[in-house]
Amino acid sequence: MDPVPPASAASPAPAPAPDFAAIETAATRLAGHAVITPLLEYHELNAHVGGRVLVKAETLQRTGSFKFRGAFNKLSRLAAQQPRPRGVVAYSSGNHAQGVAMAARLTGFPAVIVMPADSPVIKVERTRASGAEIVQYDRFGESREAIAERIARERDAVLVRPYDDPDIIAGQGTVGLEIVHQARAVDATPDAVIVPCSGGGLAAGIGLAMTRLLAGIRLYTAEPAGFDDMARSLAAGRRLRNEPGSRSICDSLMAAEPGELTFPINARLAAGGYAVSDAEVTAAMAYAFRELKLVVEPGGAAALAALLAGRHDGRGRTTVVVCSGGNVDPRTYCAAVVG
Amino acid sequence: MDPVPPASAASPAPAPAPDFAAIETAATRLAGHAVITPLLEYHELNAHVGGRVLVKAETLQRTGSFKFRGAFNKLSRLAAQQPRPRGVVAYSSGNHAQGVAMAARLTGFPAVIVMPADSPVIKVERTRASGAEIVQYDRFGESREAIAERIARERDAVLVRPYDDPDIIAGQGTVGLEIVHQARAVDATPDAVIVPCSGGGLAAGIGLAMTRLLAGIRLYTAEPAGFDDMARSLAAGRRLRNEPGSRSICDSLMAAEPGELTFPINARLAAGGYAVSDAEVTAAMAYAFRELKLVVEPGGAAALAALLAGRHDGRGRTTVVVCSGGNVDPRTYCAAVVG
Repeated sequence: MDPVPPASAASPAPAPAPDFAAIETAATRLAGHAVITPLLEYHELNAHVGGRVLVKAETLQRTGSFKFRGAFNKLSRLAAQQPRPRGVVAYSSGNHAQGVAMAARLTGFPAVIVMPADSPVIKVERTRASGAEIVQYDRFGESREAIAERIARERDAVLVRPYDDPDIIAGQGTVGLEIVHQARAVDATPDAVIVPCSGGGLAAGIGLAMTRLLAGIRLYTAEPAGFDDMARSLAAGRRLRNEPGSRSICDSLMAAEPGELTFPINARLAAGGYAVSDAEVTAAMAYAFRELKLVVEPGGAAALAALLAGRHDGRGRTTVVVCSGGNVDPRTYCAAVVG
Repeated sequence: MDPVPPASAASPAPAPAPDFAAIETAATRLAGHAVITPLLEYHELNAHVGGRVLVKAETLQRTGSFKFRGAFNKLSRLAAQQPRPRGVVAYSSGNHAQGVAMAARLTGFPAVIVMPADSPVIKVERTRASGAEIVQYDRFGESREAIAERIARERDAVLVRPYDDPDIIAGQGTVGLEIVHQARAVDATPDAVIVPCSGGGLAAGIGLAMTRLLAGIRLYTAEPAGFDDMARSLAAGRRLRNEPGSRSICDSLMAAEPGELTFPINARLAAGGYAVSDAEVTAAMAYAFRELKLVVEPGGAAALAALLAGRHDGRGRTTVVVCSGGNVDPRTYCAAVVG
């Protein structure tokens, strides 16, 4: 009988989860580079929900989504390493790609981005405009992880994972720090925060920051139906994969399963997860156009959809909704808002 | 020979222009009712212009435009009068209508709004949703002023003019107060502010506030070509009317001539006025969709258009651009952003 191989031979030891101090350090690194996005309040949205709603507009973040935060935090650390890596590689449906590409430009790293061939044109173009080299693959065929890992080996570059990385999670956690400070400034005490969720990095980061600073805050994830692996995993207490073959309008929320590093954090901190239909997402995008005057991409509108569709009961409470991104092709957008 | 009639018999004596204290008082009245809209900054917009650009997002104001500020300030004063008026009447292409309708609901006045028959559907619907009674007229035929004045007489109601009223100007001036405080908070010292302009109330209010608080600030108006009465009047030193028959995509910027009360203020405070084409406005709306993630209506994008089209040179300077409203029909919007 063969001896059981040590864990490190089968797979690298999982990185430790970031702590609160790592998020505060990330905020210091991001200062002057990332946008402190506004926490918006609308009388009409409050009236519609029957409670107080605060909208964290990460649509207004550099590169159009929260992803810049984690990427810049990660690459800032890499830039300080000796020896300095020769470059960075990332795989992404688009927003992480743009975040890494911009962070690479700012920190002086050559970047290769592995993107699905069916990514929204706007995301491909914006990633290329940041100076990154783009390698496209078939979302329903090849493994993006395998392609990215091969390129990283060949080029002596560092693979920047979209969520299973403590520096990425800590960077996204700065969203939570800002929410707490901004809510205090308007005398609001949030009862709940709803976060669009793919691999779970944004939810984990926000959860780490907000549960530390706000007693009793309840964290919820919002995912597309068919890609609600986090919601089901939270309910089951273990990581479950999505059924293959599902489709959704939310191109940015299509991770196959919760992250290895993000899941234990969310399992410890989250009160639950919501799944929203494409119709509910589309209605939320149209509401954001009409009433909030914000351009929100499908995946970025998942949390707002969970609130507007009544999956989350915001009546008589203070709910924070994170609108996580606004990178959407004009035609997709207009199909949603013209209806 | 008949004696010359006293001026008051021919027309009411012009109301005095508001002073800076009136704007500060308006800010106190608006606190908790109006939104303190964010002053946004985008790395990409800065890079595009080659200077620092701060975007005052009045698109995020209650009712979707700055007009709520002036209306609420005016109606708050009327509500404190003895005897209290029986109601309010306003004429407007839409944004002033929504502002007055909402302010009337909040202050308990019945409101009649006289709107052009070709107003954007979204503006008519939103005005009606606030509980106002709507009377429509032909923009190219009847006089809206005459209709509104008749209704006001019949109902013992007060006509709330869109710009030629010191309380309206003072309310709009709170935009300028906020800009100054918000710019200071991010260590910015604006060199110039560009303001979408119809009758000139917003420009006059912002000018009164900002020139008082910021030495050397230069105020510019932005208008649609064909409706650039303020720009031409500023250049001529006297009020000039637009040529009849002009058309523009900017439905909210169609006043026939500068206001009687607003023109002397703008003539004293403004450095000049810009005229922008429909194509430039459309390009600015698309830029705001793509890069700023803000829904901006045609008239609301006039100042941004003046900057992006290079009519205003923002290189090496700090420019504030006011995006004054976001109430636009989805089809009009999508025609602009899909292109």
